[in-house]
Amino acid sequence: MIKIGIDTFGGDAGALNPILAAISYINENKDDNLYLYLYGDEKQISEEIEKSLDKKYINNIQIINTNDFIDLNKDVLSEFKRHTTSMSLGMKDLQDDKIDAFISQGSSAAIRIFANFVGRIKGIKECPFGALVPTMNKNTLLLDSGANVDIRPEDLQQFALLGSVYMKTLYNIQNPSVALLNNGLEEEKGNKQTKQAYQLLKNDKRINFYGNLEFRDFPKGLVDIVVCDGFVGNCILKTYEGTSKELIKLLKSIFLKNIKTMIAALLIKNELKEILKNYSTENFGGAPILGCKKVIIKCHGNSKEKELYNAINQAKDYIEKDITGKIISTYN
Amino acid sequence: MIKIGIDTFGGDAGALNPILAAISYINENKDDNLYLYLYGDEKQISEEIEKSLDKKYINNIQIINTNDFIDLNKDVLSEFKRHTTSMSLGMKDLQDDKIDAFISQGSSAAIRIFANFVGRIKGIKECPFGALVPTMNKNTLLLDSGANVDIRPEDLQQFALLGSVYMKTLYNIQNPSVALLNNGLEEEKGNKQTKQAYQLLKNDKRINFYGNLEFRDFPKGLVDIVVCDGFVGNCILKTYEGTSKELIKLLKSIFLKNIKTMIAALLIKNELKEILKNYSTENFGGAPILGCKKVIIKCHGNSKEKELYNAINQAKDYIEKDITGKIISTYN
Repeated sequence: MIKIGIDTFGGDAGALNPILAAISYINENKDDNLYLYLYGDEKQISEEIEKSLDKKYINNIQIINTNDFIDLNKDVLSEFKRHTTSMSLGMKDLQDDKIDAFISQGSSAAIRIFANFVGRIKGIKECPFGALVPTMNKNTLLLDSGANVDIRPEDLQQFALLGSVYMKTLYNIQNPSVALLNNGLEEEKGNKQTKQAYQLLKNDKRINFYGNLEFRDFPKGLVDIVVCDGFVGNCILKTYEGTSKELIKLLKSIFLKNIKTMIAALLIKNELKEILKNYSTENFGGAPILGCKKVIIKCHGNSKEKELYNAINQAKDYIEKDITGKIISTYN
Repeated sequence: MIKIGIDTFGGDAGALNPILAAISYINENKDDNLYLYLYGDEKQISEEIEKSLDKKYINNIQIINTNDFIDLNKDVLSEFKRHTTSMSLGMKDLQDDKIDAFISQGSSAAIRIFANFVGRIKGIKECPFGALVPTMNKNTLLLDSGANVDIRPEDLQQFALLGSVYMKTLYNIQNPSVALLNNGLEEEKGNKQTKQAYQLLKNDKRINFYGNLEFRDFPKGLVDIVVCDGFVGNCILKTYEGTSKELIKLLKSIFLKNIKTMIAALLIKNELKEILKNYSTENFGGAPILGCKKVIIKCHGNSKEKELYNAINQAKDYIEKDITGKIISTYN
């Protein structure tokens, strides 16, 4: 039996997307052994269940009623201990083994800190967010994509190991390649952190080390895993997303310029859509926080139903393929 | 009398671009008071001068003959002291006041270290590269775009001051706005470095502080100056450039897909070119290394004649508007 908790609060568009994702998942997968625990407003969740859940699976969705959500202006520890919010109720149930995984669209900072309360695997010092990023060539796991901003070179080595287990187990990539994000290709390039990390990565036989990856080559998708601290990871991820978004906006404005360009837009529309679809993250689900004792997945605040649906699948896969167990055995 | 040195070695395409830029600059500007010192192969330079320099200005280009260039595999101090390479000859002449400015397409790492030997303005601890980046709204000066990877929060405050003097003096922007590049908008966001820097920037009345700028908003061009350490600066600059390049490549591949898309390409070609021209850095010249006692400008290894021509103009402007003097008076 697999039990996955879903925080219905925290998304930009309210609770509907996670509720509908849960209902569709149960309806479509017809899996008696899967139970989804929805943390949120009982009335709203019940109404949607009434409307669309296949009655056969009525027990496969459980509701944990709350109308409270965490206050980011308050102390995080006290917010975690205040077991009335959707996120703290879910994280507490995770800690108490009532559920096996927890999915939330809430604040990354809160998820990161709550995850530390839930507990790290023995030997793991920092738990990174792993965002799977669609690039020109392949999907690259970016670790840490934003959890830990001040870290040690040894943590980058741990990220490489965590990412290797994750990509191998979840995506069946044998011997995944790992690059160190850096400001130059040569071994001696970088800041204090990356120079030391290079040596650790190079000398760790468990890691298929590619070497340094220059920032400008990140969009090319040359490796399976890229490691860096959470500040730089957030920088590259957000700059990549932000630049793509602004350029697409620019392209749209060009298409609207005059009759000629509007005709061009019509002629190219389908091909453009087809290609851009490859760069959508909807199919990936969310970013797991790796190295935690339990499965925690962070989805974008603006995730639509499809992305949340895929996050449920991702959590189920994570549990069934026992990524946590495999990480533990790497560290023992 | 203004004397500007130009390293003709160090460019990806050989010495021709800097030589032609120098000759065009002299021919077109007809300025008796401007002298350009070309460091490089006398024979090649003489031949080009013979071919295209207006004979009236024959004395305005001087040649410092060398066929040697720095070896990046050797110790930088000894390379600096080995006064036989184009870069060390130029930097030495700068140090000895024989020239007022030096332009090079050579290695950033070498230029940065050589600049420290030439000397920093009293009170300046780290000299950042200032790359002017064309964004969706305005040109933004990114400081440090790659010189110093391990710095103190106080250095970010200095970068803000250096950038303010530069943008105000060279581009006539009154009260230029300065943002701190960070992983969140709120004051308490960031790593140790940016959290401390935020307070320094906020409390410095000489700085028109905008607050934190999130990575994803960098392409929008919301401020005149963005400060960050050289590792993160290099990350955002290269990711921005790399992503733009890959997306344009992708767009081109879509245009080539079939007859329909090829017609679309023809219909939109001019508008696309017109808009993309706004994002060219050719008109900017190069990236100055700010806070140095002397004017040093780094151009891209792949800079064409036009960019190098504009770098000469930029160096001339830097000297005539006495940016160095204005920085000194900010610090005294």
